[in-house]
Amino acid sequence: MQITDDKQHQVKPLNSWNEGAARQSIIDFVKRVTTEGSPDFVPVPERIAVFDNDGTLWCEQPVIQLAQILGRWEEMARQDPALRDQQPWKAAVDKDWTWFRTAITKHYGGDESDMPALSKGLLTAFEGLTTEDFAGRAAAFFRTGTHPTLKRLYRDCGYAPMVELLRFLEANGFANYIVSGGGRDFIRQVAGEIYGIPQERVIGSSTAIAFHEQGDGGDLLMKAKLDVFDDGALKPTRIWSRIGKRPIFAAGNSNGDIPMLQFANRPPRPALRLLVFHDDAAREFDYVSGAERSLALAKQYGWTVISMKNDWNRVFASEEVKK
Amino acid sequence: MQITDDKQHQVKPLNSWNEGAARQSIIDFVKRVTTEGSPDFVPVPERIAVFDNDGTLWCEQPVIQLAQILGRWEEMARQDPALRDQQPWKAAVDKDWTWFRTAITKHYGGDESDMPALSKGLLTAFEGLTTEDFAGRAAAFFRTGTHPTLKRLYRDCGYAPMVELLRFLEANGFANYIVSGGGRDFIRQVAGEIYGIPQERVIGSSTAIAFHEQGDGGDLLMKAKLDVFDDGALKPTRIWSRIGKRPIFAAGNSNGDIPMLQFANRPPRPALRLLVFHDDAAREFDYVSGAERSLALAKQYGWTVISMKNDWNRVFASEEVKK
Repeated sequence: MQITDDKQHQVKPLNSWNEGAARQSIIDFVKRVTTEGSPDFVPVPERIAVFDNDGTLWCEQPVIQLAQILGRWEEMARQDPALRDQQPWKAAVDKDWTWFRTAITKHYGGDESDMPALSKGLLTAFEGLTTEDFAGRAAAFFRTGTHPTLKRLYRDCGYAPMVELLRFLEANGFANYIVSGGGRDFIRQVAGEIYGIPQERVIGSSTAIAFHEQGDGGDLLMKAKLDVFDDGALKPTRIWSRIGKRPIFAAGNSNGDIPMLQFANRPPRPALRLLVFHDDAAREFDYVSGAERSLALAKQYGWTVISMKNDWNRVFASEEVKK
Repeated sequence: MQITDDKQHQVKPLNSWNEGAARQSIIDFVKRVTTEGSPDFVPVPERIAVFDNDGTLWCEQPVIQLAQILGRWEEMARQDPALRDQQPWKAAVDKDWTWFRTAITKHYGGDESDMPALSKGLLTAFEGLTTEDFAGRAAAFFRTGTHPTLKRLYRDCGYAPMVELLRFLEANGFANYIVSGGGRDFIRQVAGEIYGIPQERVIGSSTAIAFHEQGDGGDLLMKAKLDVFDDGALKPTRIWSRIGKRPIFAAGNSNGDIPMLQFANRPPRPALRLLVFHDDAAREFDYVSGAERSLALAKQYGWTVISMKNDWNRVFASEEVKK
C-alpha cells in the first residue's frame, strides 16, 4: 500500500478527513486487504467497492435529479399549453413547491390521491427520446444547474472527502462502482467529471427503453414505464448482475442502502461498511429522516459511521483543507 | 495501430485468419478508427466491441449450457427418486435425447404440450442455490465437461480466430463485451480463461435472484423464475443499461443478433458488423438454421460474413496454424 505522509512533502491520503476512528478504519482496512501474506489479503480483482450516490457522494437535499425533471415539466408546458392546467406541470410552471410537498405528505399518510398525476409526470417526462437525446439533455443540465441553497453548481456538490476516498481505493487496486437509487443515465453524464467513475460502473434506476430498428440501424427509445427502482434489496441483485462479484467495501447513507451493506459482508473475508451521517447544518444539512434503521444497524453491527461535522475538515472541494 | 508482421519475426495479428475480405475488413476498420486525425477516428473510451457467445465465440451444437443442465437433472433425480418418473428428469436420467428433440419439434409445430415440464425443469434446476453456489458448480462443470462429438473439453471449444480478434481489438484500445443469450453466471466462470474477458463484461440471460438478509449479512438466492432472456431486441437495451454507450463493433451469428448489429451503426460514426457463418462440416458444423434472416440482412447491408471454412485456417487452438 502506498501511503505517503507530510514528511515526504506529499499530500497525505484522505487529506480532507480529520484524524479519528472513521478515517483510521478506512486506512486500517485498506492495509489489511492489500498486505500480501496477510490472512485478510484480497486479490485485486476481488477489490470491489460500491457507493450509493445521493447523500453518500453528493448532496440529496433536494434530490438533484428533481431539478432536472422540474425543468423538463416547464419545458413540456411551454410546448403544450394544455399541460399548464394539469398537475404536476402546473405546479412546476407556478413553482408551487407546496403542491409537491403536500403530495408527498399525503402519500406518507396513506392518501395516494396525487400519486397518479405525479407518477404520470415522472414517467412521461422523457418519453420518446432516444437514450442519446436524454444523455445530451442531462449533460446540458449539469453545465449550468445550480443548487438552490448551497449556491453552487450541482456538479460541485460532490463531497471532497468521498472523492479522496475513491482515489485512495483506486490507488490500492479497488474498482469503484456507483449503485444509486437515482437515474442511471442521469448520473452517468457527470460521474466521470465529479468522481472519476466511468459510465459502465454506474448502476442506477431507469425507465424502460426499447429498441426500434430502422433499416440498417435503430435507436433505443425511452418508454413511459418504470424499468427498475434500484434501491433496498434490489441493490445487491443489481451489483451481482453487473459485476458478478460481492463487494468488500460498501458506503451508503440511508435505509435503502442496508441490503447493499449487508451483502458486502461474507465472513471470513473482511468487509468495510460506511454510513455517511448528515449532522452538519452549517456546511451541508442535518437530518436523520430515512436513515433511522441504517443508523441503528450501524450501531448494532459496528459499521463505520462518518460524522460529516466531526470527521470531515471540509465538505466541498471549494473549501480550504483545515490542518 | 500496432500491426506487426512476419518480417519482424513476430506473430502477425489475426494469424489464424486466411488473407481475404473478412480479415482485411477488420484490419481496415481498426486502422480507420485508431488513426488520429482521420475523420473516422474514435477515441478509446468509445471503442466498444460486443460479441455474441454461442456460435460466435464458441460452438453451439449442442448448446453447451444444456450439458450442465442435463447433469443437474440427473443429480436432482438421484437425490429425489420421485423425479425419475417425471419429465424432463426422466429423459435426463435415461439419456433419452429423443424426448428433448420431440419436445422442441412439437414446440415449433405449435404443440406446447411438453413445454410446461421443460420450463419447470429449467427454472427449478438451480432454485434455492446462492449465486456463489451456482458459480462454483459452473466452474466445476468446466473443469471436466467434454463436447460429445468434438471430443474436447468445452473450455477448449472457443474459436481461436475469434480469440485472436479479441486480443487484436484490445491491443487497439477496444473494450470487449460478451452479450449472450446464454446464461450470464455460467459464461462468467469461463470467459476469463477462454476469452480474457472479465466477469463484469459478460452480459447474458439469467433467472431471477433475490437478496435474503441474515443478520449482518445475507445471500442472493436463485428463484424458479426467468429474469431475462437476453436475445434479439433486448441485446441493445442491455448493452445500454450496462455500458451506457453504443458499440462500434458487433459480432454475431444468428437472427437473435440482428438488433445488436443494427444498434452498432450510428452514422456518420463508423461501425463494423461481423456474422460468423457455419459452413465447415469438417472442422466444426455446417448449418444455417436460425441465421436465415441475419445472413439475408448481411447481404443487404454489407455486413462482413465470416466463412469458417474459407476465412479461418484453423478453428480451434489445438490445431496448427496453416501458413
